[in-house]
Amino acid sequence: MQTTIAVINGPNLNRLGLREPHIYGKGTLSGLEGNLKKMESEMDVRLYFGQSNHEGDLIDWIHEAASKADGIVLNAGAFTHYSYAIRDAIASVDIPVIEVHISNVFARESFREKSVIAPVVKGHISGLGLEGYELAVRALYAIKNRGNEDEQS
Amino acid sequence: MQTTIAVINGPNLNRLGLREPHIYGKGTLSGLEGNLKKMESEMDVRLYFGQSNHEGDLIDWIHEAASKADGIVLNAGAFTHYSYAIRDAIASVDIPVIEVHISNVFARESFREKSVIAPVVKGHISGLGLEGYELAVRALYAIKNRGNEDEQS
Amino acid sequence: MQTTIAVINGPNLNRLGLREPHIYGKGTLSGLEGNLKKMESEMDVRLYFGQSNHEGDLIDWIHEAASKADGIVLNAGAFTHYSYAIRDAIASVDIPVIEVHISNVFARESFREKSVIAPVVKGHISGLGLEGYELAVRALYAIKNRGNEDEQS
Amino acid sequence: MQTTIAVINGPNLNRLGLREPHIYGKGTLSGLEGNLKKMESEMDVRLYFGQSNHEGDLIDWIHEAASKADGIVLNAGAFTHYSYAIRDAIASVDIPVIEVHISNVFARESFREKSVIAPVVKGHISGLGLEGYELAVRALYAIKNRGNEDEQS
Amino acid sequence: MQTTIAVINGPNLNRLGLREPHIYGKGTLSGLEGNLKKMESEMDVRLYFGQSNHEGDLIDWIHEAASKADGIVLNAGAFTHYSYAIRDAIASVDIPVIEVHISNVFARESFREKSVIAPVVKGHISGLGLEGYELAVRALYAIKNRGNEDEQS
Amino acid sequence: MQTTIAVINGPNLNRLGLREPHIYGKGTLSGLEGNLKKMESEMDVRLYFGQSNHEGDLIDWIHEAASKADGIVLNAGAFTHYSYAIRDAIASVDIPVIEVHISNVFARESFREKSVIAPVVKGHISGLGLEGYELAVRALYAIKNRGNEDEQS
Amino acid sequence: MQTTIAVINGPNLNRLGLREPHIYGKGTLSGLEGNLKKMESEMDVRLYFGQSNHEGDLIDWIHEAASKADGIVLNAGAFTHYSYAIRDAIASVDIPVIEVHISNVFARESFREKSVIAPVVKGHISGLGLEGYELAVRALYAIKNRGNEDEQS
Amino acid sequence: MQTTIAVINGPNLNRLGLREPHIYGKGTLSGLEGNLKKMESEMDVRLYFGQSNHEGDLIDWIHEAASKADGIVLNAGAFTHYSYAIRDAIASVDIPVIEVHISNVFARESFREKSVIAPVVKGHISGLGLEGYELAVRALYAIKNRGNEDEQS
Amino acid sequence: MQTTIAVINGPNLNRLGLREPHIYGKGTLSGLEGNLKKMESEMDVRLYFGQSNHEGDLIDWIHEAASKADGIVLNAGAFTHYSYAIRDAIASVDIPVIEVHISNVFARESFREKSVIAPVVKGHISGLGLEGYELAVRALYAIKNRGNEDEQS
Amino acid sequence: MQTTIAVINGPNLNRLGLREPHIYGKGTLSGLEGNLKKMESEMDVRLYFGQSNHEGDLIDWIHEAASKADGIVLNAGAFTHYSYAIRDAIASVDIPVIEVHISNVFARESFREKSVIAPVVKGHISGLGLEGYELAVRALYAIKNRGNEDEQS
Amino acid sequence: MQTTIAVINGPNLNRLGLREPHIYGKGTLSGLEGNLKKMESEMDVRLYFGQSNHEGDLIDWIHEAASKADGIVLNAGAFTHYSYAIRDAIASVDIPVIEVHISNVFARESFREKSVIAPVVKGHISGLGLEGYELAVRALYAIKNRGNEDEQS
Amino acid sequence: MQTTIAVINGPNLNRLGLREPHIYGKGTLSGLEGNLKKMESEMDVRLYFGQSNHEGDLIDWIHEAASKADGIVLNAGAFTHYSYAIRDAIASVDIPVIEVHISNVFARESFREKSVIAPVVKGHISGLGLEGYELAVRALYAIKNRGNEDEQS
Repeated sequence: MQTTIAVINGPNLNRLGLREPHIYGKGTLSGLEGNLKKMESEMDVRLYFGQSNHEGDLIDWIHEAASKADGIVLNAGAFTHYSYAIRDAIASVDIPVIEVHISNVFARESFREKSVIAPVVKGHISGLGLEGYELAVRALYAIKNRGNEDEQS
Repeated sequence: MQTTIAVINGPNLNRLGLREPHIYGKGTLSGLEGNLKKMESEMDVRLYFGQSNHEGDLIDWIHEAASKADGIVLNAGAFTHYSYAIRDAIASVDIPVIEVHISNVFARESFREKSVIAPVVKGHISGLGLEGYELAVRALYAIKNRGNEDEQS
Repeated sequence: MQTTIAVINGPNLNRLGLREPHIYGKGTLSGLEGNLKKMESEMDVRLYFGQSNHEGDLIDWIHEAASKADGIVLNAGAFTHYSYAIRDAIASVDIPVIEVHISNVFARESFREKSVIAPVVKGHISGLGLEGYELAVRALYAIKNRGNEDEQS
Repeated sequence: MQTTIAVINGPNLNRLGLREPHIYGKGTLSGLEGNLKKMESEMDVRLYFGQSNHEGDLIDWIHEAASKADGIVLNAGAFTHYSYAIRDAIASVDIPVIEVHISNVFARESFREKSVIAPVVKGHISGLGLEGYELAVRALYAIKNRGNEDEQS
Repeated sequence: MQTTIAVINGPNLNRLGLREPHIYGKGTLSGLEGNLKKMESEMDVRLYFGQSNHEGDLIDWIHEAASKADGIVLNAGAFTHYSYAIRDAIASVDIPVIEVHISNVFARESFREKSVIAPVVKGHISGLGLEGYELAVRALYAIKNRGNEDEQS
Repeated sequence: MQTTIAVINGPNLNRLGLREPHIYGKGTLSGLEGNLKKMESEMDVRLYFGQSNHEGDLIDWIHEAASKADGIVLNAGAFTHYSYAIRDAIASVDIPVIEVHISNVFARESFREKSVIAPVVKGHISGLGLEGYELAVRALYAIKNRGNEDEQS
Repeated sequence: MQTTIAVINGPNLNRLGLREPHIYGKGTLSGLEGNLKKMESEMDVRLYFGQSNHEGDLIDWIHEAASKADGIVLNAGAFTHYSYAIRDAIASVDIPVIEVHISNVFARESFREKSVIAPVVKGHISGLGLEGYELAVRALYAIKNRGNEDEQS
Repeated sequence: MQTTIAVINGPNLNRLGLREPHIYGKGTLSGLEGNLKKMESEMDVRLYFGQSNHEGDLIDWIHEAASKADGIVLNAGAFTHYSYAIRDAIASVDIPVIEVHISNVFARESFREKSVIAPVVKGHISGLGLEGYELAVRALYAIKNRGNEDEQS
Repeated sequence: MQTTIAVINGPNLNRLGLREPHIYGKGTLSGLEGNLKKMESEMDVRLYFGQSNHEGDLIDWIHEAASKADGIVLNAGAFTHYSYAIRDAIASVDIPVIEVHISNVFARESFREKSVIAPVVKGHISGLGLEGYELAVRALYAIKNRGNEDEQS
Repeated sequence: MQTTIAVINGPNLNRLGLREPHIYGKGTLSGLEGNLKKMESEMDVRLYFGQSNHEGDLIDWIHEAASKADGIVLNAGAFTHYSYAIRDAIASVDIPVIEVHISNVFARESFREKSVIAPVVKGHISGLGLEGYELAVRALYAIKNRGNEDEQS
Repeated sequence: MQTTIAVINGPNLNRLGLREPHIYGKGTLSGLEGNLKKMESEMDVRLYFGQSNHEGDLIDWIHEAASKADGIVLNAGAFTHYSYAIRDAIASVDIPVIEVHISNVFARESFREKSVIAPVVKGHISGLGLEGYELAVRALYAIKNRGNEDEQS
Repeated sequence: MQTTIAVINGPNLNRLGLREPHIYGKGTLSGLEGNLKKMESEMDVRLYFGQSNHEGDLIDWIHEAASKADGIVLNAGAFTHYSYAIRDAIASVDIPVIEVHISNVFARESFREKSVIAPVVKGHISGLGLEGYELAVRALYAIKNRGNEDEQS
């Protein structure tokens, strides 16, 4: 059965490659999306993408994904640290969400240590660059396709 | 070039499968190690394992890995939340360390929100069950083998 | 003299009935709006409604209500806990605003204890389910229509 | 079926009308009780009243109400902010309690922001003057008389 | 014009002389009251006394003093540190209250540093032993009898 | 020499057996007192009992016990967490006081972690159900009757 | 060489002149923009303006300014105090941003003391009314046109 | 049925009698163990002992006790205040653990007020000298042998 | 025996009468000193005065008073809230120091609640206007001249 | 009418140009004063200067300026962060004070984020190098010379 | 009389010279021990050494030193910041302990500011590189050999 | 090459020997300076001294030392805990400063735990009595005269 995954990026990620490359690397958002798209040929997965600097858009998209996708890879950017509205959006849908951060958020400013969405997501991946997105897709695929999720919850 | 990876588990992980299965799942530590071992046939990687309830053992093993391995997958268990000595051990070696937690540590007691080792590791993976270890191995393999790490740091 | 009241709902309240029914109940947003609408036949009041997941929309609507309505019933959802911009919007209008929450926000996660809009609203009603909206309408009606508000401020 | 409601006022509320009228209004406690009493003719409800400056009296009365009343309207005055004993009393009875404050406690001294009884009451109403008591009676009446409380909890 | 002053002592002050004499001295409560009583012959002042271990009694007595006395000397004992109800009682009366402590509360346990009644009293005297009561009486007498209080407020 | 012990219970303990039995068990207060009374036949001890929801009563009783008893078993209920007045009462008497809690207060709400009386009591017993009272009686008996208390202080 | 400057105003500044005139003055937003526009005739500067109550719009405009302007005058309104997303937007562009506040934010509610964008802007001007905008334009003009910025960084 | 109990002492308790006797008394560890051993003749209980300054040893022994004993009396010494690893060890076994402290930890340095293991143990006994161990044994014996533990949990 | 008392005023008290008269009254510093000087004819006391805006001067004067005076009346102005150096100066002399504040420091900005010198002074008087100085002189006189200070310490 | 402005610099600003030039630039204090002096020919303003490492000098000078100047440009250096005495000095004079900092104090050590004088000054300018002083002079000139200050307060 | 001194190094100090040389320098542990050993020829002192990454070893060695040495030079590495067990070990021995740190711990991460062992050691030396050890030996030698320690305690 | 060292003592150290001898010992300041002066005959070092109770003097002297000395031994007394101005003075000079305290500041009041100058000094020595000054001189001498400071920084 095909697994559909929404890959949602939040504020300032449209500036990937332009923005502080010593932190976020030189890859661009479209480059990232292109690379992830290639995974569709490796496994039975379909990916679709969204990026917005508007908190409300992210909330709308999370709601929509509830009926369109089997899981969400979410890099909420700086909203991660204060958007309890996005947190509630995640809690309001039944599909698993994996939180991804490109950089190691724990090695930077102290406000980045706190993720207000962390308690309601399925899992977190951070510090592993753009590869973190790929690992998240892989994890959602496994969750959808493994027989007995309980075993490892 | 072969990639050697140390998989180090800290206190109480010897009780995996016995300990609070609603949190940590039913898989055992030897089952986990056996499953990971199978990755050696999939990619050019060699894994070795260690588990101890003694903080000093973990420090000794991190020191040793500096000359024996290309990276460390570390689940430091509860030491994660207070062992600045393990943090210093990680900072004292040049190989990348990926911090793994089986459960979503952010959805549990508040003391688990804080990882004192987080600022000095390369990356974190949590909440994804035993699969987190596999993703960590995959990430370390990629770090060792990709041409230009700078691109995505 | 007719009393006009804006009933404004914030993020994720469009998922009422779908979202965590053990917390928010099984009633839907349109059901709620329909029930409130019936109050127009009981007293000389006119209600109009708005819901958005976009903080900016809520601010715009509060500004607009300043010249269109005699009071606002506001459930700002999770924005309640961090949107100082909505707080400033409320402070910038002269009509009374009553803050409503469906659940008892003090019996849930600690971040829900703090309402940043509370110091600038007229009153609060929480924990009384969808009925809280009705009580808020009733209270705004009384404020508009009682002779001497000073007596009980 | 008749609904019996205890209306309990805590410390200093005997000085209503005398005490800081710019905050609490000019209405007196007996005036308030008289007005509420009139609701008995509007709906099938019986109200009885109590006021004390002694914390122990409030606890005793809450215990008694467990077998005498269908709900409690409680303005615990300043005990609201530190009486964990009253909190435990509320938790020890099965009938719903609604917390009422005459003024907007969130717009005053910071110690008034914290209600230690809030996590164990059914609902809160504040900032709406003496009218808050009437709304609370109305809400308790509805809880007793609506068919399916679960729908909106 | 005669000045009437209520001297009110709170919990455990009935054990004065018995209780930790290295902190509170060897004088007893009745000894203190007797000494203060002698001031009636020195100046045109009438003193009356009260002591209780019951918070509610202190509140009742503060309310009564509003119509019986020109000022209150209050040693609220440990209630000083948490009784917001006594604070509200003081704020609800128009006569000046002077807070007295026998020992230097700032040189003891940290919880004694905080007086919740301090923001609403007229003045404080502490650390000066039983003499503090006499100074407080003297100060209330001066407030009552000086022509222009504004000059030094 | 006979040992006399006061067993004093604070607010809401009169509801033992009725109140939240999943926390406090099904035994009633009179059942508890009856069981403890039986210890008088096992060892040379005399017990007497008191329960009140009034903080002032507890203070009065602690003062009285100073001349009537050799020790106090005190479950101050929720006063444990804020009554500095009870703390001062304990500090004002020379007999040993043992603090007892039925439930494990450290495994519940965070406000229950702090006992303001703990620094001035002789010892604490918590989490051991009604049996904790019996152990406390036994400990007070031993303190009274062992030759050289210094050895283990 | 002409200096282009974006003047961006955040939430509720559209209500300038209407909103709390004792704090923000009686001047309107269009009046402010008109006055600033006059500076174009005094020095070789071109100004353009934007105001929105939507956080996402401000982020979009900061991104756009990176290629359209030499500097930004930003009054982020209440977003100043929590929008880490706007902070990241500022950090992602290379042009200098000057933070302006009309009122003295340090003399008001405590939440206004903290600016989350402050660490990434070039400079701050507050408390100087609408004139603060003019000073900010002047400062950006100087930065663009002085030979050796390093001298005074 | 015989009850087997492990009595485990943590760091520095090997110095009992040598270490700060004004706090811990003059009894030695072997003296304590000898005295407890005598209880085997009083009731059907078997005790075995362990002491280590190594956190890892305590964890190992707690794991072992899971299959060897019916309960643990644990004085974790200073580990009590920071060893989340020991906490997890306790949580990972199904037998009851009673936490014992010789001195009144609440009357000493502030760091001793916090026990990180307290939320996961069955009960606590502190301040009662070496006798606390005996009471703990007695309590574990009762838990094992009483018919209906639910009654008093 | 004559009592010599140093009356030392700290920063900004030279502006008494000019500075915020709604807080500090209209009396000037020289007026205050003149009034206090009159006490020399009432009792066998000699007063001398000093005022400085320099923290070092206050420290020097406190040192000097150790050999010149029997006590110090000290209004350290804002240094009260941060000058640990003045605190150490007070602790380094053996004569009693009484801390005086004209206004009720607990009813103003929160930083004024904390006196860093409070733990080392003999007593405090605040909120009683310029009369506080007179009461402090009176108290120092009594300390010097009463037979048995221990009685009330 | 001529505007007289005092430009007062606090501790370590005599080392401008010598001290950490990467933070404070290479300009010296005399260079700064010389540049500002040139403004006297541009507008009808007279400037005079002062620098001291002694807190007391700054307080004295602020007092003096009250009768000599129309406003003060104040860079209080590190006193900014703890000198409540300077704060009180500012509050005690009626002329406007503008706080200037050369560097962006919000982008440095955390103790620099807090200005204890900020709540009582007219405005702040920081991060704009030595130019900040010029802007401050300009702002004070405008305050003195504009017709209706109220409009923009 | 010969002075015997134990020089004990904690976790990660075996990596001295390898570990972060920009912080800890290039000298190795054996180099350090060799250099210190040379002091035996300068003064009548005997040194012996120990290093371990195991907290329990350090505790054991501190206990042993109580009977083998006249003082301890202790660099507890990162245990300094959380090992209350080592603190208790130090408090349990009567010989002086001097705490040494190679780097200036106050100029690094905030967790390094807090030393939990500091309150129980004799003295501290930090920031002076490996020379700090030599100074510590010299200080212990002086303590042992000076006639009257009291003079400078 | 001769090493010149300034030995600067702050507030209240002129009272050494007089002030709290149980904490600071019986040696006087001139005794200390005399003893240190003797070191000039042991090694090629020249010492000069200063003591002041005026913060500004200490700042002036630190500035002067920048061109007169090779290093500073600084006991800033209580200024250590709040003088950010002295901190900035230290940061503004290029010569090494060693912070000395006579007593163990970590074993006293909590405010003494924090040194605001610690992050900018070279090293700290505390708890070693007057000998600490001698060790500091020795350390500065070594820094000046060792070939390669980098080795141990």
